[in-house]
Amino acid sequence: MNIITISREFGSGGRELGKRLADLLGYDYYDKEIISAILQSEEHDDEHIAFALDNHGWLNYSMTFSRSFAPAISMMQADVLLEQKKLIEKIAALGKDFVIVGRSADVFLKDYNPFKIFVCADTESKIKRCIDRAEDDEKLTKRAVAREIRIIDNSRKTTREIVDGGTWGKRDNYHLTVNTSEWSIKDLSYAVKDYYTAFLNSKK
Amino acid sequence: MNIITISREFGSGGRELGKRLADLLGYDYYDKEIISAILQSEEHDDEHIAFALDNHGWLNYSMTFSRSFAPAISMMQADVLLEQKKLIEKIAALGKDFVIVGRSADVFLKDYNPFKIFVCADTESKIKRCIDRAEDDEKLTKRAVAREIRIIDNSRKTTREIVDGGTWGKRDNYHLTVNTSEWSIKDLSYAVKDYYTAFLNSKK
Repeated sequence: MNIITISREFGSGGRELGKRLADLLGYDYYDKEIISAILQSEEHDDEHIAFALDNHGWLNYSMTFSRSFAPAISMMQADVLLEQKKLIEKIAALGKDFVIVGRSADVFLKDYNPFKIFVCADTESKIKRCIDRAEDDEKLTKRAVAREIRIIDNSRKTTREIVDGGTWGKRDNYHLTVNTSEWSIKDLSYAVKDYYTAFLNSKK
Repeated sequence: MNIITISREFGSGGRELGKRLADLLGYDYYDKEIISAILQSEEHDDEHIAFALDNHGWLNYSMTFSRSFAPAISMMQADVLLEQKKLIEKIAALGKDFVIVGRSADVFLKDYNPFKIFVCADTESKIKRCIDRAEDDEKLTKRAVAREIRIIDNSRKTTREIVDGGTWGKRDNYHLTVNTSEWSIKDLSYAVKDYYTAFLNSKK
């Protein structure tokens, strides 16, 4: 079984890259929305998602492709993190190849030796991407977006510190760190697929 | 004209990767040894290489493939750094495609928009690589090697701080950050060449 985990800076296009990679490779695909949907369908209700920042210091933002900066920030408890961990382990136990974006999956799945990708971009590109994908009625200033990016990436870093002592974005924790700034994500997905395929072939 | 710059952690195999990439692409190749040899042949003598750490805070280690940890550490003056900068600009002015390893070339050549690669590896792999390539009479302990790697990488970081305020290893300063830990450099060179070629094609 082959697994690709994608960690990413907010606004770097990491999720789109993950989805496209999964499509190109014929792998299953998971991200925050899908993980959450599965957990809810299994009768994990909203009481797990409580305002518990002061108890656990761990928060997670509700984001969608279309509305990046929904003001509602859900702060999840450590037990939700554990639920996610269990679900990710269940997914891996299915034995099917998959791509998973975020969710500290690279840590939870380390015994499976996933191919770990980190996706970054320069600040200008990330701001542009966020503004481009915002809905028309979202009035986003560059400054506000830059601030949100910093907050969200710091939150990811914090989550990682809780999960494994802090390796988020540390270059030697990943097989590959790609910078999306000068790419269309579509073109990039082919290049990353080829790199990954060469990696698999080199192991044979 | 196309330029690839390679920055690397000591012991990561960055220089070998650069040489192989140049060979695969048919590009010219430059690194510290070649730059130094050219400078010396142009009557740049040793008086440039003085013990001036206290004046400039900038140092550079004398390294070769075969004898990684030669005890002689040459501390170069800022004017040597400037000589190197001028030479690198002269090389670029030739208008031929080339790969250059180290020498802060990514900074000096930024107006040429080089494709910038950073090469890293986990500590274990770097130690192994250093020990493997040491000569038989070099008795290297893991601990000593780990220490040298830290010292040399810190020196590179320091040099970069002097040159441009400090972007060494910062992920969004590079197009691609590759981790050599699980690769043979030969296999990796093909994968990076393909990624780079896809990048050039996406610009057309």
